Amino acid sequence: MTLPLALSNQRVQRLRRLIGRRDERRMEGVLVVEGAVLILEAAEAGWEIESQFVAPGTDPLEVGGEILKLAEGVLERVASTDSPQPILAVVRRRAVDPGIIGSADFVVVADGVSDPGNLGTMLRSAEGSGADALVVTPGTVDYTNPKVVRASAGSIFRLPVVEVSDVSELALSGLVPIGTSSHGATAYTDLDMTRRIALVLGNEPRGLSADTNVAEWVTIPLQGQVESLNVAMACAVLCFEVARQRRSGSDTVASP
Amino acid sequence: MTLPLALSNQRVQRLRRLIGRRDERRMEGVLVVEGAVLILEAAEAGWEIESQFVAPGTDPLEVGGEILKLAEGVLERVASTDSPQPILAVVRRRAVDPGIIGSADFVVVADGVSDPGNLGTMLRSAEGSGADALVVTPGTVDYTNPKVVRASAGSIFRLPVVEVSDVSELALSGLVPIGTSSHGATAYTDLDMTRRIALVLGNEPRGLSADTNVAEWVTIPLQGQVESLNVAMACAVLCFEVARQRRSGSDTVASP
Repeated sequence: MTLPLALSNQRVQRLRRLIGRRDERRMEGVLVVEGAVLILEAAEAGWEIESQFVAPGTDPLEVGGEILKLAEGVLERVASTDSPQPILAVVRRRAVDPGIIGSADFVVVADGVSDPGNLGTMLRSAEGSGADALVVTPGTVDYTNPKVVRASAGSIFRLPVVEVSDVSELALSGLVPIGTSSHGATAYTDLDMTRRIALVLGNEPRGLSADTNVAEWVTIPLQGQVESLNVAMACAVLCFEVARQRRSGSDTVASP
Repeated sequence: MTLPLALSNQRVQRLRRLIGRRDERRMEGVLVVEGAVLILEAAEAGWEIESQFVAPGTDPLEVGGEILKLAEGVLERVASTDSPQPILAVVRRRAVDPGIIGSADFVVVADGVSDPGNLGTMLRSAEGSGADALVVTPGTVDYTNPKVVRASAGSIFRLPVVEVSDVSELALSGLVPIGTSSHGATAYTDLDMTRRIALVLGNEPRGLSADTNVAEWVTIPLQGQVESLNVAMACAVLCFEVARQRRSGSDTVASP
């Protein structure tokens, strides 16, 4: 029988670094998944579970990977939340073929989105509305951030995430890049979303820069005195309009 | 010159209770607004500012109300966030005529929504999509909770909030109550949302109880392996479909 690992153990120290540091996660090509529900979703989607760290009194999951037992109170000091889940896994990132963009019909682009909760929610909307991938630019929060993983509710394991250095790279893919603005553009419901499109959403609270390399701009018309929607809400509204138009065919789109 | 107030001061102790306790806010008919941006929105919407509590080095706003200066370090101990705004206001709740529901065309109903961030976001979507009111049932988090106020981004000062003891009360108003479910109902885009409707959203993660007194049920069709949307995202998607249909006229709704 092996002794439970203390905080000072090298493996625990590595886990702690992986949770806190983007560069460590990137260098090792892994991400940290917190809680049984999400770990099972990762395994089900075919991601390789490298190791499981379990708190005292918790059973490891039947998903493979080395089992490492933590001593009392250790998990609370390494996890990213105040009331941590009793099990964490280090999961190997699956390679994504960037060529997927060339054959995609619909992608969502996060260009400078800074809040991990918003990015995770965007992944969930993108998958739920039938997008083929999420594209991220360097200004966007790291998508392997534990808060992104959590907010994505598992979508991060199923929807490919592709990194580009700039939105302009999408031009090569044949997708029409559509920028979203909080005012002054075509109403999103008046645009034909059944084409091959890339919906580009920007930073909160600044939005997309006006010189972002997009072909068209859309806006969500707002009533009352609401100035703008949060980027995750805007993403949900836009993504499900894409899904609606694709279900109905483009003939139901009102003419501009 | 008056001395800045210490934590032990009665007014400061009252402020602290108002932030933390729903019953105190209700009894006094007030809510606490944190930060200059939101306080200005409250004043602009015609809410009466009863008092302003300001941290050292911060100027009060020109919005009326008694000015109370706080001693160094006091604000940090009473505010609801870790990095508090340097100014808080106690604001008198404006009376809402429950009769507004009888003449409303579109209301959003939060029936058991427990997360204050979600409820605030729902207020923002409701206002932005042209709803006439938000209706809350007793199982829903208190809408005067400081986190709700913050997440509403000011919508709470503009959109009337009406309390009912049960969803069934809406029947008297002539609004068609439409329940939302994560599966198995009519697609929301196939339902005529140009009628006088009440969109009813339920608890996260349980959703609405199956015996909720609604006339019809809708669902948001989901692709991939997404099981459901967060209640705030679902609310945004549904609300903006209502707005879309009302802009286009009901003739663009696909037949079921």
